[in-house]
Amino acid sequence: MTQSYKIGIIGFGTVGQGIAEILHLKRKSLEETYGFRFQVVGIADPVKGMVYNPEGLDLAKALEAARSGTRLEDLGIGEAGWDSLKLIREGALDILLEITPTNLQTGGPGLTHLREALSRGIHVATTNKGPIALAYPELKALADQHGAILKFEGTVLSGTPVFNLRAYGLPAASIREIRGIVNGTTNYILTQMAQGKSYEEALKEAQAKGYAETDPTADVEGHDALAKAVILANVILGGSLHPDQVPCTGITGITLEDVQTAQQEGKKWKLIARAWVEDGTVKAEVRPQKIGPEDPLYAIDGVMNAVAFETDVLGSVTIVGPGAGSWEAGYALLSDMIEIHRILQTRR
Amino acid sequence: MTQSYKIGIIGFGTVGQGIAEILHLKRKSLEETYGFRFQVVGIADPVKGMVYNPEGLDLAKALEAARSGTRLEDLGIGEAGWDSLKLIREGALDILLEITPTNLQTGGPGLTHLREALSRGIHVATTNKGPIALAYPELKALADQHGAILKFEGTVLSGTPVFNLRAYGLPAASIREIRGIVNGTTNYILTQMAQGKSYEEALKEAQAKGYAETDPTADVEGHDALAKAVILANVILGGSLHPDQVPCTGITGITLEDVQTAQQEGKKWKLIARAWVEDGTVKAEVRPQKIGPEDPLYAIDGVMNAVAFETDVLGSVTIVGPGAGSWEAGYALLSDMIEIHRILQTRR
Repeated sequence: MTQSYKIGIIGFGTVGQGIAEILHLKRKSLEETYGFRFQVVGIADPVKGMVYNPEGLDLAKALEAARSGTRLEDLGIGEAGWDSLKLIREGALDILLEITPTNLQTGGPGLTHLREALSRGIHVATTNKGPIALAYPELKALADQHGAILKFEGTVLSGTPVFNLRAYGLPAASIREIRGIVNGTTNYILTQMAQGKSYEEALKEAQAKGYAETDPTADVEGHDALAKAVILANVILGGSLHPDQVPCTGITGITLEDVQTAQQEGKKWKLIARAWVEDGTVKAEVRPQKIGPEDPLYAIDGVMNAVAFETDVLGSVTIVGPGAGSWEAGYALLSDMIEIHRILQTRR
Repeated sequence: MTQSYKIGIIGFGTVGQGIAEILHLKRKSLEETYGFRFQVVGIADPVKGMVYNPEGLDLAKALEAARSGTRLEDLGIGEAGWDSLKLIREGALDILLEITPTNLQTGGPGLTHLREALSRGIHVATTNKGPIALAYPELKALADQHGAILKFEGTVLSGTPVFNLRAYGLPAASIREIRGIVNGTTNYILTQMAQGKSYEEALKEAQAKGYAETDPTADVEGHDALAKAVILANVILGGSLHPDQVPCTGITGITLEDVQTAQQEGKKWKLIARAWVEDGTVKAEVRPQKIGPEDPLYAIDGVMNAVAFETDVLGSVTIVGPGAGSWEAGYALLSDMIEIHRILQTRR
């Protein structure tokens, strides 16, 4: 059955633009295949600007403005003066796409946006790891209380399916342990080191290619992987861990000599995010581990990511795919919206 | 919402017993988590026997009989005289589990069973490749016409999700090409040859471990992989290929020297099943290919299987998991039944 959704986008950086491009390109096939119709009625971004049009914004023009540096409110495609909170409170949204930067200490503005939206019954798709890592049980309860659906496929492995794989591909399977290579930057650096480069050289190369930030701390100290380990533990294993409770070691202590010694043993150093159940308690950790070819994560090199599930009925099942990128993460939001649409169809 | 299903099982070999064990073990959690209640009312197998009880069979006793060699009708747990067709026609089934052996020439009794069930509106979950490879478009139309649901996750990669991954993990993604290592026997043999064994030695070892049949033709000549390539092409890419139209080369022409030459080049020979769209036409093939470490299938060794999807939005996404086994294939049927249950909930 066809249904139409009013969508608001908060955060119009590379991922926000990625989902806008995908929505623009797939508009016709989304309606034909899924009965999913949409209007993007508002976009709010502190840098790109803010604009609102209850009849739907022209996405091609909004994307062109974001690329050329024109602020959205200067485009003449809608009303100015709509900041992110006004968009949630007064924008008559059906779905909010929350794509602001991750803040693992406070949850950042994303946590406020999610609380505001869910408490109004607005469905949410987000790629923002902060709120989900810090407050998943609270946000899930808030969503349930107000009949809202909260989806966040893009918080782990971008659009490569992890949560939908568990829900629909591995239903009724009992999962004992989840292990993943969930950070592309560190995996790229370790892969380059395995080819003989020093840590410093490899980091510089990752920065030159846009895989690592100017301040690479969040990646190389393991904080990004930590957020993902906590999300996997709390969402899939039913834990209630806070990031502060989870041991986390990054890759800055790994030397070229370590990497070369491992190679001589036929092994590789990988930064492994792990969540598991031990004596009925959900645990998680992030640390570099030396793994051999028998490990399904051994072959995952460069910026590629992977998550391996240990199940009761199938043994080990591993999904391998990209973990970042504007289209890759943007697609996660589309996948989430189709899932929201599907769940809503079952409710009628 | 809780719903109860009357299930019939046709084929009570290792996979039939596998799903019976899983159903028996997970009865309580299936009801609690999914609202899925069931009674297995009939089992029909030419070797293990046939039995029917409209109040539900005692699965523990049926499994014990299958292991000990007692025929099911001699157990005293239900009525005798119920062959497979009578079970479909008079058993008041909600769901049929069709688990008879694959016949790629005629579709075998499985094709008859599926037509009989679907035309009566009985939902079907099957691991039988023959009917799906030979007659998917016909069977899908028959199912739709009679309001029945046809699921067959176990025909490719046993319980490792391929079709549910595409439907729920990669929705609205356009898929250009699917490549897979979909036969564990040949992959085991090629992996052993890479360790220096001759084809004959490796085959004998595969037979000793139960990975290869006494007559290994269906595996080593690529027929099993061919069936799976056709299923992937027709189901996921919308083709209407017949197995006879698809080029198929097995691994019997691969020598130890070929394997060793590849190794010196840093490559491996793998039996690749492939389905793709070329100039708007769906094509498929099965043949050994020499692939390098950049290929997501390169690392898939031993009896492990994998399928790689080439998508527009995510690039390459690969699922890796077991491709055979009594629990692994049995679980595919459980996954299918939960999916049938989920779809039925959306219909009310």
